[in-house]
Amino acid sequence: MGRYSLGLDYGTLSARAVLVDFDTGKEIATSVCEYAHGVMSEKLPCGETLPRDYALQHPQDYIDAFYSTVRECISTSGIDSADIVGVGVDFTASTVLPVDEKGIPLCFIDEFKDNKHAYVKLWKHHAAQKEADDINALAREMGEEWLSRYGGTVSCEWMLPKILEILREDEAVFNKTFRFVEAGDYIVGLLTGRETHSVCAAGFKGLWNEENGYPCREFLHRLDSRLENVVGEKISTDIIKLSGIAGYVTKEIAARTGLAEGTPVKPAFIDAHAALPALGIVDSGELLMIIGTSTCHILLGDKRIYVPGISGCVKDGIVDGLYAYEAGQACVGDSFDWFIKNCVPHSYYLEAEEKGIGLHKILREKAKKLPAGSGGLMALDWFNGNRTPYVDGGLSGVILGLNLNTKPEQIYRALIEATAYGTQRIIEIYEQSGIEIKRLYAAGGIAEKDEMLMQIYADVTGREIYLSGTAQACAYGSAVLGAVGERGYATLREAANALRKVKDAHYTPDAVAHERYAELYAQYKKIGEYFAVSERDMMTVLKEKK
Amino acid sequence: MGRYSLGLDYGTLSARAVLVDFDTGKEIATSVCEYAHGVMSEKLPCGETLPRDYALQHPQDYIDAFYSTVRECISTSGIDSADIVGVGVDFTASTVLPVDEKGIPLCFIDEFKDNKHAYVKLWKHHAAQKEADDINALAREMGEEWLSRYGGTVSCEWMLPKILEILREDEAVFNKTFRFVEAGDYIVGLLTGRETHSVCAAGFKGLWNEENGYPCREFLHRLDSRLENVVGEKISTDIIKLSGIAGYVTKEIAARTGLAEGTPVKPAFIDAHAALPALGIVDSGELLMIIGTSTCHILLGDKRIYVPGISGCVKDGIVDGLYAYEAGQACVGDSFDWFIKNCVPHSYYLEAEEKGIGLHKILREKAKKLPAGSGGLMALDWFNGNRTPYVDGGLSGVILGLNLNTKPEQIYRALIEATAYGTQRIIEIYEQSGIEIKRLYAAGGIAEKDEMLMQIYADVTGREIYLSGTAQACAYGSAVLGAVGERGYATLREAANALRKVKDAHYTPDAVAHERYAELYAQYKKIGEYFAVSERDMMTVLKEKK
Repeated sequence: MGRYSLGLDYGTLSARAVLVDFDTGKEIATSVCEYAHGVMSEKLPCGETLPRDYALQHPQDYIDAFYSTVRECISTSGIDSADIVGVGVDFTASTVLPVDEKGIPLCFIDEFKDNKHAYVKLWKHHAAQKEADDINALAREMGEEWLSRYGGTVSCEWMLPKILEILREDEAVFNKTFRFVEAGDYIVGLLTGRETHSVCAAGFKGLWNEENGYPCREFLHRLDSRLENVVGEKISTDIIKLSGIAGYVTKEIAARTGLAEGTPVKPAFIDAHAALPALGIVDSGELLMIIGTSTCHILLGDKRIYVPGISGCVKDGIVDGLYAYEAGQACVGDSFDWFIKNCVPHSYYLEAEEKGIGLHKILREKAKKLPAGSGGLMALDWFNGNRTPYVDGGLSGVILGLNLNTKPEQIYRALIEATAYGTQRIIEIYEQSGIEIKRLYAAGGIAEKDEMLMQIYADVTGREIYLSGTAQACAYGSAVLGAVGERGYATLREAANALRKVKDAHYTPDAVAHERYAELYAQYKKIGEYFAVSERDMMTVLKEKK
Repeated sequence: MGRYSLGLDYGTLSARAVLVDFDTGKEIATSVCEYAHGVMSEKLPCGETLPRDYALQHPQDYIDAFYSTVRECISTSGIDSADIVGVGVDFTASTVLPVDEKGIPLCFIDEFKDNKHAYVKLWKHHAAQKEADDINALAREMGEEWLSRYGGTVSCEWMLPKILEILREDEAVFNKTFRFVEAGDYIVGLLTGRETHSVCAAGFKGLWNEENGYPCREFLHRLDSRLENVVGEKISTDIIKLSGIAGYVTKEIAARTGLAEGTPVKPAFIDAHAALPALGIVDSGELLMIIGTSTCHILLGDKRIYVPGISGCVKDGIVDGLYAYEAGQACVGDSFDWFIKNCVPHSYYLEAEEKGIGLHKILREKAKKLPAGSGGLMALDWFNGNRTPYVDGGLSGVILGLNLNTKPEQIYRALIEATAYGTQRIIEIYEQSGIEIKRLYAAGGIAEKDEMLMQIYADVTGREIYLSGTAQACAYGSAVLGAVGERGYATLREAANALRKVKDAHYTPDAVAHERYAELYAQYKKIGEYFAVSERDMMTVLKEKK
């Protein structure tokens, strides 16, 4: 008889479950489920066209993925589900949905099923930029203390701008909403039948902290008088740390999934954060990059420091007693996919078909042969705005250095290099703020698969990069969290030390390439400052002409 | 019995001949011939890889095209070639080749046939940027008067930088060269058996003018002591105006083409300039845009004015008694072709195939539906450097405003809009310098075919645009010049007034679109100034990393 832990990971396009052996870390069973509706950025299910910058999801996809993956994990593993000591859940954030007093998503209600504001606003929904701007302006005017914890700027990706957007655009949805909940908390609620709110999303995306709670009534009133009582009414103040227990699997869920009733469920992790314990990162100074559609840069520190443009700094946000810092790039793999979908010529398609490989692969093969600097090209990696350091969803992508001999693989490589410069910018900002980065780790699908990209990252940063020992670091990390509790490890630190997975092989920077990149990186920074700071209006004017 | 004139037009990719009825302007016969070697930018015929920024041509292609098109015109028309009153020739410029004392191109000589410097350096060969930089630096230091006639900067596309490049890189080719000749003069020489040099290329691309001739010995000596005697030795000082006669068709050429021996041949036009008489433009203040792979903006003025960044100002350069001004954009249609070749995804290819139309057409269909401003995108049209106003081959293309929803047709339209902004910049510079633009004309393949582009040009400039009444304005204009002389019209003005072809229908700007574009154009200028002036090094650094 063994002991097991179950991790559930909700990403941007799919969810996965992993069942982990409590003692060895062996991944006993895995199941993945893609969301049927994916990311809705152009149309609602009813066919209604969505405005620009929208990114919605359908909560039914989350529920379907939950049943499908959990059932499959339990049935294929053949274990006795009573041996599962706990369940951990992680989710993208801030991915927000409005629910009614029974916890039902509003978009499930007939009256609202064709209403875009009743759906889940995915983390990368960017239509609340005006709301974020207004929140920032007021917070600066009122000297709000909490602003400094978020690098001086609230992102349009977070919860409050999204709530304000709903209020301004459709008061009926706002009024009908009993609670605005993070999707991660919604799933935990589904398992436990209890409403809980995790410190992780509340701290990083909800403007909450332990000392002062949420932004004060006066601030909310001045932002919009109808928001005066939103905290306590539509936003729960009952926040629980990751070291706690969110609840226990209900009888109904047990019946429908094969889980044992009463299995402890941990509070929800933010997806990227869950990877830290997977790699055994429980001490300060080790930076983890989760490289996927976007990238998170997560770090634990033993003190609170102001870091410009970071996404957040939350005490006890991951490991009790330490400050968890998050910075990020809003668009990484997404820009490569954009390129593959929109910019690869027919001749490359034919060549890929002939070789029996995918477009990404053929582009990588060609791009690998190019020198550092992509043969004279440079890009700004802001295809989905910029998170750190400018926290500005209104910024956009740029490609420089084009000429009549420019080949697709040059642009492809330039997009990759741009994301590496963006990461170097974040490392620099952490260090300039006083948090020494002792070691770099990477996890996520792209880190796993794309050796060329990883070598470019090592060359640009001039640092060794260590890789996650599991391909599903977030799901695995959630399972590590799930293993903490009454029947499991005493603390997350203990569980992470016991179960950590890091590969021995790692990437080593090439000195010549690093020198070359250092010069290019200086240009990247300068161009970035031009468009993001000196001539910020430039991109606004363009965006207004959409 | 009629009277006829023959025009020969040598473009970047093909040559054409047109036989024109002297009295009615009717185009009796036309023949086109593509160059077998096209533009050699990657490899020499022997397979040798060319360095970056190269653009060579093979003179055999010019000769083959000459025989093929002239023969075909004469034979299909069925006319008596004795009724041809004259031949006009136009050619791209500065398209330079080294010839020996017999006028044979060096690349035809065994010893040099695998030597890249023995071939024709096409106008858009950009490898002599360093040489142009050195010429500019020295000319400024020595306060050379001629520099101001060229907008303050010599382009790497012109003759002297190309000669200096040959001298520096391969002295043997330089020493073997009896004359460096413009390709247009080379063709005139082929017809007449006489060496002549037209004012048009010498004035616009050779740094020559009537008062002072070429740059002085002292300047050339300081540039490179081996150049001290180049003028007079390897560069002819025998310059002939367009109102003169270059010579007469030789017996040999007559035998091989069907032309009558002794038919007068006019001095060579620069290709774009030849379009002026075709549209009847022989007075000041009427700007003609020849829109093709690149665009020339040509204007006649009654006084000499300093215009920054223009390509040249030549007294009697086209019409005796007037100053001919030329400005230009180094890359127009070329950037659209680059896009079609490198950036159109497979799905569009399939859609085009299904509809049985070309990629340009399907992109135009989609782009036409977009708002002014391409839905938030902007490009700098510098894929082949910038000619006016910065005269800087080291500049490169930029695309701004990209995001994950950006579609190929947006980029395509943004590239078109960028070329319209580039044209507006040139109009503005002419006017700010004191040359009023009373009317806009357009000719060239793109002006003829692309209604969307022309409407965008009208909307961006806020001006009506009139079109050439012939699809082959350059060839036709050469024929108009050919009609001037002993047996023809007394002057080019008289011939142009008699034979002018302008369509009645014209493009009218849309007021709303113009207003929108005015704001975007201001951004275009600002970004341009940033990369071309304030942070010029940025693009140099990128280019050095090639």
